[in-house]
Amino acid sequence: MEQLIYGIHPVRECLRSGTRPVSCLFVARGAGSPGLKAVVQLAQRQGHTIRFEPRNLLDQQVGGANHQGVVAVCVARPYVEMEDLLDGLGPAPLVVLLDSVKDPRNLGAVLRCCAAAGVDGVVVTKDHAAGVTATVSKAAAGGLEYLSIARVNNLARAIDQLKTKGIWVAGVETGQPLGCQDLDLTLGTALVLGSEGAGLRRLVRGKCDFLASIPTPGPIQSLNVSVAAGIVLYEAIRQRGLSRNS
Amino acid sequence: MEQLIYGIHPVRECLRSGTRPVSCLFVARGAGSPGLKAVVQLAQRQGHTIRFEPRNLLDQQVGGANHQGVVAVCVARPYVEMEDLLDGLGPAPLVVLLDSVKDPRNLGAVLRCCAAAGVDGVVVTKDHAAGVTATVSKAAAGGLEYLSIARVNNLARAIDQLKTKGIWVAGVETGQPLGCQDLDLTLGTALVLGSEGAGLRRLVRGKCDFLASIPTPGPIQSLNVSVAAGIVLYEAIRQRGLSRNS
Repeated sequence: MEQLIYGIHPVRECLRSGTRPVSCLFVARGAGSPGLKAVVQLAQRQGHTIRFEPRNLLDQQVGGANHQGVVAVCVARPYVEMEDLLDGLGPAPLVVLLDSVKDPRNLGAVLRCCAAAGVDGVVVTKDHAAGVTATVSKAAAGGLEYLSIARVNNLARAIDQLKTKGIWVAGVETGQPLGCQDLDLTLGTALVLGSEGAGLRRLVRGKCDFLASIPTPGPIQSLNVSVAAGIVLYEAIRQRGLSRNS
Repeated sequence: MEQLIYGIHPVRECLRSGTRPVSCLFVARGAGSPGLKAVVQLAQRQGHTIRFEPRNLLDQQVGGANHQGVVAVCVARPYVEMEDLLDGLGPAPLVVLLDSVKDPRNLGAVLRCCAAAGVDGVVVTKDHAAGVTATVSKAAAGGLEYLSIARVNNLARAIDQLKTKGIWVAGVETGQPLGCQDLDLTLGTALVLGSEGAGLRRLVRGKCDFLASIPTPGPIQSLNVSVAAGIVLYEAIRQRGLSRNS
């Protein structure tokens, strides 16, 4: 199935990673940003078909979204099977589970954090959650190209499957007495993050080995789910001593 | 000057904090969410004028933004003077400086992190940066009501002023060899975060005592500015042992 992706980061990382075929690039005519020029040069070097078109044609293609002058037609990125994700895990993996994250920009922003942290896999729910659309891809800023994402009907079952692999499951939500800095995240860990409004669902929360909060000493106790993801993933990276880029 | 704010979190925190007069609340007719009902009850208890109107009137008021059934007309929240911000700082303060953050949603998301962390002040630039609009307020999810925000012409000068108060200035951007976990954030600290695309401007970068990165061992090295803010503020809170809510 073909899909549109747009924006400099998403298209650049799609080309750089080479993880999915690109059939055509649409580039807005006229002076472009240095970032856009770099994308065009990369696409030319890779021998892709590039069509320079009026900017308003690109506007129409993406329904007025901020395409930054470039739209790519590419094969939709496939999900991986949960079993394949599990089989592909190395020692002490870091996995992120998202329980019903509905807002596509939030989902994309979480995936960007996951790609920056170099997580080993992401599990999302099929129902009541955003699919991996062009909006998600844009917010993920290219991170989508590097992630193994499984989409499951039943997150509680996925948690059980992770547990049988010896992975500890930590749910992150506000109001828990344990802080995320108190978890041992050097062990194989699955972090479970809930939706913006409701947090973790009861059944999912009940399956977690630990429940922890991010410390918020200020007057506001809630964080955006992508900020929460960024913080717990940072804490895992800090504990693991992974301060250098791989 | 009057301003509209909208959304459950922003309006609720505006009412709860009582930091600015509210002249009227518009609430969408019909069944509302539990969050909306709680806001209406709070407003009634405080004796505010509430007008129940058709949802599309609220849509028009906010130009189609996601108002979640509530719009408040209130006095625009004033900025503080830089001098007053400086005078108000206690020992070992935590201050956040934003260098030309242009996207209002990003600015709001950063301010939400600042309010969750309980920072002592925020400094934003006047030029080339988003003002504190209703969109910012929405993304800040109520955090705006609790923050002292100074808006300055010259961020480099503000850095000098902070330095004369004995505060260490740490710029956060990608590609620096020092990690944010290597900074001593228990000292009085001003964290400087740059815009989404360009990072810190040269003059601002040159004024920083330290430059540090957030570790990103994965294939994507860039983080959203609000995620970056959330992570460095979390690191400061962790180092300071402020794991409990105040």
